[in-house]
Amino acid sequence: MKSIPMAVTMGDASGVGPEIVLRAFDAHEIGDEVLVYGDASILAAGAELLGLIVDLHIVNEPGQAKTGALNVVDLELLDAADLTPGQLNAKAGSAALGYVKQATLDALAGRVAGITTLPMNKEATQIHAPGFIGHTEFVANLCSTENFSMMLTTEDVAVAHVSAHVSLREAIDRVTRANVLRVIELVHATLTPFIDQPRVAVCGLNPHAGEGGLFGDEDALYIRPAVDDAIGKGIDVTGPLPADTVFYQAIKNDRYDGLVCMYHDQGHAPMKLWGFETAVNVTIGLPIVRTSVDHGTAFDIAWQGTAFTGSLSSALSYAWKLAGDRG
Amino acid sequence: MKSIPMAVTMGDASGVGPEIVLRAFDAHEIGDEVLVYGDASILAAGAELLGLIVDLHIVNEPGQAKTGALNVVDLELLDAADLTPGQLNAKAGSAALGYVKQATLDALAGRVAGITTLPMNKEATQIHAPGFIGHTEFVANLCSTENFSMMLTTEDVAVAHVSAHVSLREAIDRVTRANVLRVIELVHATLTPFIDQPRVAVCGLNPHAGEGGLFGDEDALYIRPAVDDAIGKGIDVTGPLPADTVFYQAIKNDRYDGLVCMYHDQGHAPMKLWGFETAVNVTIGLPIVRTSVDHGTAFDIAWQGTAFTGSLSSALSYAWKLAGDRG
Repeated sequence: MKSIPMAVTMGDASGVGPEIVLRAFDAHEIGDEVLVYGDASILAAGAELLGLIVDLHIVNEPGQAKTGALNVVDLELLDAADLTPGQLNAKAGSAALGYVKQATLDALAGRVAGITTLPMNKEATQIHAPGFIGHTEFVANLCSTENFSMMLTTEDVAVAHVSAHVSLREAIDRVTRANVLRVIELVHATLTPFIDQPRVAVCGLNPHAGEGGLFGDEDALYIRPAVDDAIGKGIDVTGPLPADTVFYQAIKNDRYDGLVCMYHDQGHAPMKLWGFETAVNVTIGLPIVRTSVDHGTAFDIAWQGTAFTGSLSSALSYAWKLAGDRG
Repeated sequence: MKSIPMAVTMGDASGVGPEIVLRAFDAHEIGDEVLVYGDASILAAGAELLGLIVDLHIVNEPGQAKTGALNVVDLELLDAADLTPGQLNAKAGSAALGYVKQATLDALAGRVAGITTLPMNKEATQIHAPGFIGHTEFVANLCSTENFSMMLTTEDVAVAHVSAHVSLREAIDRVTRANVLRVIELVHATLTPFIDQPRVAVCGLNPHAGEGGLFGDEDALYIRPAVDDAIGKGIDVTGPLPADTVFYQAIKNDRYDGLVCMYHDQGHAPMKLWGFETAVNVTIGLPIVRTSVDHGTAFDIAWQGTAFTGSLSSALSYAWKLAGDRG
C-alpha cells in the first residue's frame, strides 16, 4: 500500500463512473492505493448489479484504508433507489460535485496525493449548480487558483491551452502576450520534474501561424513576443508554428514534449483522434495534482458492464507521475 | 494509355516537385497517363543529377503523347542554369504559376482530364505575383468560380472547410447560414458520384459545438439552421457536432464519409496528423478536377533523391476517381 492514497471521485452515479471503479478494481487495474470518494450504497448496489464480489471498506479518515479492499470515503449523498442507470438525475449531478469538493479539500489538506476524477454530467449538475462549467474550473476555484490550464496528454506529448471552455471569439481575445507566456511557463513547470529541459512548441492562432501577417496579426503581435519572453527565461521553446503540422512533428517525429494551443479545439481535435483511449486530462497550475479520464458519463452504455476502464488506469498513472515529483 | 491524360504541374523547380515526377516515373508509380506541365530542360538536368534514365517526350498538343515515355508540355520558362536546388528563386516561383495556368486552361478546354499539382513556394511566387495566396484561390479564379472549398481527403474521410486562408477572426465572420449550407452541398455533390447517399457531419464552431449557447451562439444561430436547410434538400447530414470527437467517429467508427469544418486548422490539424503521407488536397466546386499533394516544396531536401513520392500517387488516384465520374 502507498503511504498516502490517490483520491478517485466516482462521478455521476447515473453514468459509467462507479461501474468503471468497480470493474477496474475487480480486474486488479486499481487497488488499495486508491481512495474512492462517492457513495458506498451505490457501489454496493452496482457490484450486485454487475455480479461482482467487491470488498468495500468504508473509511472516515484517509489513514484507515484496508489492504486488499476497495476503500471508500462514503459521502452518503445518494441512495441506489433514487436512480435509474443512464437517466439524467439532479441528485446524482449534485452528489458528483460533492465528491469532487471533498476530494479536493482532502488533497489541499495533504490527506490524499491528488485526485483523479471520473465524469460528471454537466446538465445534471447544473440543475442545482447553475454556474457549473466543468471540473477544471470548479477545482481551480476551490484551490483559489486563477493561473491554471487544461492539459491533454498522451504518452507522446502534453498539450495545454491558453483558453478552453469559452467561445472561439473570446478565445481569440485571450491570446495576449501575458497569457501565452503564462501557459508556456505552466507547461515547462509541469514537465520539468520528469523531463530534463522539456521541448515546448507553441501553435499559431491563425492558419499557417498567420503566414507572415497575411492571415491575421495576433501571431506576430502577441505569440512571438511571448515565445521570446520565455526563451529569455531559459525555456526551450519555439513558435508560433502552424498548428496543422506541429502535432505530427511532436508525435511522429518526437520533436516536442509539450505543446501550447491557443484554444480548445486546436488541441482537442487532433489529440482526441490520436489518443482517444489513452488521453489523460490534467489541470495544471493547481497546488494539488488533478487528472481525469478523457471521456464523459456515456449514459447510453452506463451499468451494462461494457464501459472501457483503461482511461482510469492512464489517468491514475499520470497522477502518480505528477504526485511523485511533489513527494 | 488513357484516352485523355491527367495534367501534373511540376511545381517550383527549386523544390521537390520535379524530382518527385522523375522518381515516380522511374518507379512506375506514374506513366503515360500523365502529362507533365513544366520545363523539359529542368527535368532533363534533374534526371542526370539523380542518375535516372528517363525518356522525356515533348508534347505540343495533349493528343501527341508517347506510350511508355514521360510526356511533357514544355513551357520553356526556365533554364537549369538559373537555379540552385533548394534556394528560393523568383523565376522558379513565377514559372510554377505558369505551369498551373496552362494546365488549368487545358483542363477547362477538355484537353486533359484534370490537374494534379506539385508544390509551389508562396514566397518565391509572390515576388512577381504579390497577390498570390495559393493554388486553390488561383485555380478557382482562372475558372471564374466563387463557390469553391478546399477539401482534405484520406481513404477514410473527406473534409471540406467553410474558409481556409483567412485569419481566424475572419473565419468566424464567414460562418453564415448560407456559407455553411453551400459547403455541405459541395461535399454532398463531390461524394455522391462514388458514394451512395454520403453521410455528412458538420463541426461546430465553438468548443463542444457551443454547449447549448454557453460558449458562443454561432452554432445555434447559423450552423444548425444550415444543417436543417440541407436536410430539407434530402442530404444525409448531422450537426453541429463537437469538433473534438467527430474525427474519431468518422475515421475510427466509420460513421461519416464527409465532414464540414468551419476553419482551416479545425480540419487540417487532425487530418494532417492522421493522414500525413496519404492526405490529398482537393479543390471542390470547380468546373474541372483539381487535386494536390499535401506537402510543400521542402527546400531542405530538394534534389537529394529522398522526397516521398507516395503523395503524388494518392493525389493522382483521387483525381482519376473524380474525373471518372465526369466522363
